[in-house]
Amino acid sequence: MTTKKLGGQSAALANPPTLVGWANVAGKKEGEGPLAPTFDYIDTDDTFGEATWEKSESAMQKQALALALNKAGQPAKTLDWLFAGDLLNQCISSSYAARGQEIPFFGLYGACSTMGEGLALASMTLDGGFGEWAGVAVSSHFCTAERQYRTPLEYGGQRTPTAQWTVTASGAVVLAREGPGPYVTHVTVGKIVDKGITDTNNMGAAMAPAAHDTLLAHFKDTGRSPSFYDMIFTGDLGTLGSELLLELLHRDGYQLKNHADCGCLIFDPEKQDVHCGGSGCGCCASVLTGHILNNMKAGKWKNVLFCPTGALHSPTSSFQGESIPGICHAISISAAK
Amino acid sequence: MTTKKLGGQSAALANPPTLVGWANVAGKKEGEGPLAPTFDYIDTDDTFGEATWEKSESAMQKQALALALNKAGQPAKTLDWLFAGDLLNQCISSSYAARGQEIPFFGLYGACSTMGEGLALASMTLDGGFGEWAGVAVSSHFCTAERQYRTPLEYGGQRTPTAQWTVTASGAVVLAREGPGPYVTHVTVGKIVDKGITDTNNMGAAMAPAAHDTLLAHFKDTGRSPSFYDMIFTGDLGTLGSELLLELLHRDGYQLKNHADCGCLIFDPEKQDVHCGGSGCGCCASVLTGHILNNMKAGKWKNVLFCPTGALHSPTSSFQGESIPGICHAISISAAK
Repeated sequence: MTTKKLGGQSAALANPPTLVGWANVAGKKEGEGPLAPTFDYIDTDDTFGEATWEKSESAMQKQALALALNKAGQPAKTLDWLFAGDLLNQCISSSYAARGQEIPFFGLYGACSTMGEGLALASMTLDGGFGEWAGVAVSSHFCTAERQYRTPLEYGGQRTPTAQWTVTASGAVVLAREGPGPYVTHVTVGKIVDKGITDTNNMGAAMAPAAHDTLLAHFKDTGRSPSFYDMIFTGDLGTLGSELLLELLHRDGYQLKNHADCGCLIFDPEKQDVHCGGSGCGCCASVLTGHILNNMKAGKWKNVLFCPTGALHSPTSSFQGESIPGICHAISISAAK
Repeated sequence: MTTKKLGGQSAALANPPTLVGWANVAGKKEGEGPLAPTFDYIDTDDTFGEATWEKSESAMQKQALALALNKAGQPAKTLDWLFAGDLLNQCISSSYAARGQEIPFFGLYGACSTMGEGLALASMTLDGGFGEWAGVAVSSHFCTAERQYRTPLEYGGQRTPTAQWTVTASGAVVLAREGPGPYVTHVTVGKIVDKGITDTNNMGAAMAPAAHDTLLAHFKDTGRSPSFYDMIFTGDLGTLGSELLLELLHRDGYQLKNHADCGCLIFDPEKQDVHCGGSGCGCCASVLTGHILNNMKAGKWKNVLFCPTGALHSPTSSFQGESIPGICHAISISAAK
């Protein structure tokens, strides 16, 4: 068998798996933003009926997967594999969401890039001949992330201008080996890129070099130019990180006219006080499973490059003076194989 | 193409990838235990030359991967993919170990089961036609784990009789699509199993039901009986968890006479004060990459089932009264395809 690995960091799926069901659930603030019509469920108080924020996040992820399965017309037991991850210590949102679901489980940690990591692994697994169905589910919650990474909500800490707002949302996708599309045709798996940024309130700057690195690799490995895509979505660089990415690409001779960032799309910069935009695993995942895939299904876009970015630090590594390693995975999604 | 997915939770590799290089590094206490001769490097003070325990763990994982690559006779850039994980919040040991290595990176979280998760994904990826080489690296460190999960070392807390001792070690494996073996022939991917255990000082009891569930699935899916294997290694149930597993299997009519647990092998129960045995990602990983694979290479065992177990809770989930979800992956390793 010929390898499906292209040069460098990319692979071309021989028989591209199809995205057959996708869904998202979001919190109150997200439900007041411009993408509200693309969310399948919006909670009124972000608790999702649970007594702790961590349990809320887990419930949210479970609900997103259930809705995605429902749209795919499949019960949970259909899934050969579930790939899931989140931002919390020991990825508890995902483990508790998957508990009792009887699905062979792969836990992932890719910070805000997790939906990309999951789509890459699920696609390669199905294309490799391993099973017929796979699920990917990720989540983030503003209140769990603040508690864990920053300060207790009650503290009411002032946010810096470069800060991003962790999105309360979960996105889930069901993939099948055969189906009507859209299809995952290529994946470019990110390397860890660290340019020495130590400011944990400026994740856009920490992640932009990783997005730059992966996009260059994707164009080189696949031979595609940016104009092949109707849209290139990064997530979640925010406004500053997006500016940096475009500047870095400009130096290489690329003028991206078809770029948007999930972190910039999910909130209204005029009316919602989020500084540099949204972040968190749930940000690009909920934009993918609403705005992006719904528009592809409606025929607006035929070829999309989905490039979630993640910052792989922890509070401990930052306290110890470490810089912030970034990663970005690029997933090519096309209406036709 | 016919699916390689067997019924249930298992897959049979069509062209089983080979384990071509493996290595481990361990701490001082581990180096005083019965498996000392099987470790490639033993540190004298567990710092691995670094100023914080977290950086020590990261250095350890980087070293294990470098040694495994060295044994495989390959530079790091040969690796098409690296699968890595650890126990720390946001898996920082792995991300910082992989930084600067220029390898497409998949971050995993499977707690102490991570070596199994990584072997399953790496094997399926290579067998699926994606690339020629993959690495799996995992680690745990007693001092980082105590700080994060339990109490500061300086506190000198008393340990309960059911507690296990987090192993300071890292294990790494390099897999190739073609080679002389040993081969990964089958994988059984665990579901999340939670029988309601809430005592975080009794992880063996929390994980034994997951091991039981995965072993039953493996026997059913593959049609193999326990006696097919020269040895069945679980990791890391410890003494109590192992007893529980054998009792659960006994109720199903299985009498495992070829079972050993990595958590029971790594320390001397008489001379080393570790209560129920070792634990941590690095425990079963360092036993695999020394004791198990070295003995297979020497011809002592032809067929081994490697079944790492993980407890997917966090301190936060336990403080919130949650029980401990367990998972276990089973990896069939054979000298012949």
